[in-house]
Amino acid sequence: MTKQEKEKRLSDWIFKYSAYFMALNVINFDKMTVAPEGGNQYIDDRAAFLSGELFSIQSDPDMIELLRELKDDDEIDPDYKRMSELYYEEAMKLQCVPKDVFVEWQKLLYTSHNHWLDAKKKSDYSIFEPYLKKVIAMQKQIIEYRESDMSVFDQLLSDYEPGMTEKKYDEFFNALKGAIPDLIKKVNAAKPVDDSIVYLKYDINGQKKYMKELLDYLHFDKSWSYQGETEHPFTTWLCKNDCRTTTKYLEDNAISAILSTVHECGHAWYAHNVDDKYDGTILLDGVSYGMHESQSRLCENYLGRSQAFWENNFPVLKRIFPDQLGQVSLDDFVKAVNVSRPSLVRTEADELTYPMHILIRYEIEKGLFNGTISTEGLDKTWNEMYKKYLGVDVTSDREGILQDDHWADGCLGYFPTYALGTAFAAQFMHKMRQEIDVDDLLRNGHYDKVMGWLKDNIQHYGRRYDADWVIQHATGEPFNPKYFIDYLTDKYTKLYNLE
Amino acid sequence: MTKQEKEKRLSDWIFKYSAYFMALNVINFDKMTVAPEGGNQYIDDRAAFLSGELFSIQSDPDMIELLRELKDDDEIDPDYKRMSELYYEEAMKLQCVPKDVFVEWQKLLYTSHNHWLDAKKKSDYSIFEPYLKKVIAMQKQIIEYRESDMSVFDQLLSDYEPGMTEKKYDEFFNALKGAIPDLIKKVNAAKPVDDSIVYLKYDINGQKKYMKELLDYLHFDKSWSYQGETEHPFTTWLCKNDCRTTTKYLEDNAISAILSTVHECGHAWYAHNVDDKYDGTILLDGVSYGMHESQSRLCENYLGRSQAFWENNFPVLKRIFPDQLGQVSLDDFVKAVNVSRPSLVRTEADELTYPMHILIRYEIEKGLFNGTISTEGLDKTWNEMYKKYLGVDVTSDREGILQDDHWADGCLGYFPTYALGTAFAAQFMHKMRQEIDVDDLLRNGHYDKVMGWLKDNIQHYGRRYDADWVIQHATGEPFNPKYFIDYLTDKYTKLYNLE
Repeated sequence: MTKQEKEKRLSDWIFKYSAYFMALNVINFDKMTVAPEGGNQYIDDRAAFLSGELFSIQSDPDMIELLRELKDDDEIDPDYKRMSELYYEEAMKLQCVPKDVFVEWQKLLYTSHNHWLDAKKKSDYSIFEPYLKKVIAMQKQIIEYRESDMSVFDQLLSDYEPGMTEKKYDEFFNALKGAIPDLIKKVNAAKPVDDSIVYLKYDINGQKKYMKELLDYLHFDKSWSYQGETEHPFTTWLCKNDCRTTTKYLEDNAISAILSTVHECGHAWYAHNVDDKYDGTILLDGVSYGMHESQSRLCENYLGRSQAFWENNFPVLKRIFPDQLGQVSLDDFVKAVNVSRPSLVRTEADELTYPMHILIRYEIEKGLFNGTISTEGLDKTWNEMYKKYLGVDVTSDREGILQDDHWADGCLGYFPTYALGTAFAAQFMHKMRQEIDVDDLLRNGHYDKVMGWLKDNIQHYGRRYDADWVIQHATGEPFNPKYFIDYLTDKYTKLYNLE
Repeated sequence: MTKQEKEKRLSDWIFKYSAYFMALNVINFDKMTVAPEGGNQYIDDRAAFLSGELFSIQSDPDMIELLRELKDDDEIDPDYKRMSELYYEEAMKLQCVPKDVFVEWQKLLYTSHNHWLDAKKKSDYSIFEPYLKKVIAMQKQIIEYRESDMSVFDQLLSDYEPGMTEKKYDEFFNALKGAIPDLIKKVNAAKPVDDSIVYLKYDINGQKKYMKELLDYLHFDKSWSYQGETEHPFTTWLCKNDCRTTTKYLEDNAISAILSTVHECGHAWYAHNVDDKYDGTILLDGVSYGMHESQSRLCENYLGRSQAFWENNFPVLKRIFPDQLGQVSLDDFVKAVNVSRPSLVRTEADELTYPMHILIRYEIEKGLFNGTISTEGLDKTWNEMYKKYLGVDVTSDREGILQDDHWADGCLGYFPTYALGTAFAAQFMHKMRQEIDVDDLLRNGHYDKVMGWLKDNIQHYGRRYDADWVIQHATGEPFNPKYFIDYLTDKYTKLYNLE
């Protein structure tokens, strides 16, 4: 084959791959957002079958040969070379798994999600436990086919965040543990900031009305985006001009849907901002899960909780909820939005206690994979760890072990990327503030220009480079968690007038 | 192969077929309801590719052999025999078409739909005309591959309604023409019934509030159903326990979304009521398009416009719109809902003028296929025919030739099934009223029991039998359009105090 023929063959294969991938993505989005429960079994069986069809494409031995060749070929287009390398890695992870096992795995994940949802509705972990047990066992089985020297958990961690291992995450979390628990203690001992206004009754129709304004403010343009509703908010994209987020409204919380929307739109902006030429390929996916979370968490916390953001948004929210907010000053509202208080639910957590929520999940995942923790009684383990790390009493499975859907969906080893990404974000934010007047842009409704900085420095490259390259490129230095720790220390010292 | 092996092979193939079919169905529903425009091209290209994958399955030569054998095999299960017959027919229609032509056809239909939508928004037929021209040319090309003795138009008619031809439809429409235009004239000359209350401003949030009540009344249970919103309402089903309808709200019309919902839910009930054992197979589809429309039109008109229906529903609507309806009596409202007046938009038309809307489309389709009508200037032809048959002046393409999406989607020859189905419905209704107290059930909120009669007599059988069998089975006699004509004559004579 000539160079052109090889490139043609690769791009034809990528197209076919992308068609199946898109179909499964739409089926999943549909299932999460609108499909009635009655069709679950029917749809899940067929979606699992189609995953098998995609599996056969992804692990096609002829393509593996070609990819192996292309990834080491310095003559071909460097984008194709990078894609080949990534597709090859993926193929090698799949080709060792028997197809029928893979299809069973997909079926199990669908079933497990259904039972998680049911268990969460009923706030009863015992409904979900047998499926979680199966998911973990089968995840192990699937990883073990690779016959790698790395532990199963290290392989999972590195699937989500290339290069990361338990050892490296331990170091990272130790760095956080050296500062955050102390800071939490000081905040807890300080004079509380009143945030009761956040937890009044905010009628959901009103919240939806404000949501339209917020999506406008975020420049979340309907020509390339869509927002649905789900039990657990998430983001997905069919292509760079079809990015979807979901949100969830809580009647007794003014900011939950708002900050979750700003978070999910951060993911969506990332996908939308990737270079056009990567659309439909593995390079659209972004550097890593940690890098994706860095963008969403940056939006949620570093932008969405800022004074400048609310200078623009608070008057609009106030107009919709005059009874609740009419007498509240901007300063008091922003303070309330930034209160730190140990709590039960990760997605509602403030920036300071958030890493502790992740740490708990990370410790549990470690235990599940090294055999020191079992799914039986995991609700109790969960509750004990919340008591230990955050000092709170978990009163229901719904707000305890069942709050997140990640494990139900087979995303084991994903959680640590949230904390890592949040720390990446601190470093990006530090640099961004040196280069553009973020507050001025947020204040004046130029959220798109803030996204522009992220696009130029990070998002534009898609998955073309790795996380180390991107961090170095965007900030001029390697990743350093001190930016995150400094940010938290500075922020909460000021907010709570600490020593 | 043993009988068991053959049946196993058939059912494996049906499963695979149903998986691809479902994927395309979900992609289409997603596109119609939520997908942002920006992704159209990306999604359409890949959906067309996947249609090609399904095409290869549907027209697999080995399966054609097996189906040919099974359809004539009296030893196998009669359900399998019937399925084999239907799958075989479909395969024979497809196998003669080159796959690349088929994929191009799918692409064209997606593109054509996008341009229709754009044209309708801008009310400009010239945007859509080039695509309509291409759709018709390519539809002809595709049908001509079959090398049948029948005309292209007859083949299309018979694809949607097995056994129907231009000649038979002409007879049917002639029967209608013998009665309806005269009746329309008489109604137009009679003292008008005031229906101005229907066309006040009905805030869409209020309409949505009522919609929840209506869906409850229709027993449109969320465990197996879902309702979205689209420019053109439609119904689809992934399986019998996942049936989806869409609706469209008009601010200046109290009953448009309501009757359109009752109509679409009629389709959904049909799919939901088919025998469990046909789920996932070609037998879930229902007898024919005409039979499907018979169920939806029966619900919309014979139930949804009845006094008994509104005895239950009007008080609820009144409570939501006290300013508009507070002083209106039930009798006056029901009269308003049943007013007949020549109008522009088919989906808003009353029962009496409705067949004329269909006749216009049927005459145009005939002309398009026999070459006496061209897509160029078709907007003018359309407007002239509305003047001729209904005496109305079309003032915009949006409410004229661009109102329906059927032609954009390649559904040429579909329209007549609406009129035929409406006539089937009259005959079913006549029989149903002899067997159950329909009004009592509607009045007292037992809509599900009315659906039960349709289920037992018609819907339960899916596509197991043909239309002749079903009509004979359900009503004890062959199809007779006199029931429809008698119904209209009786109804409008009473409503308008005609001679």
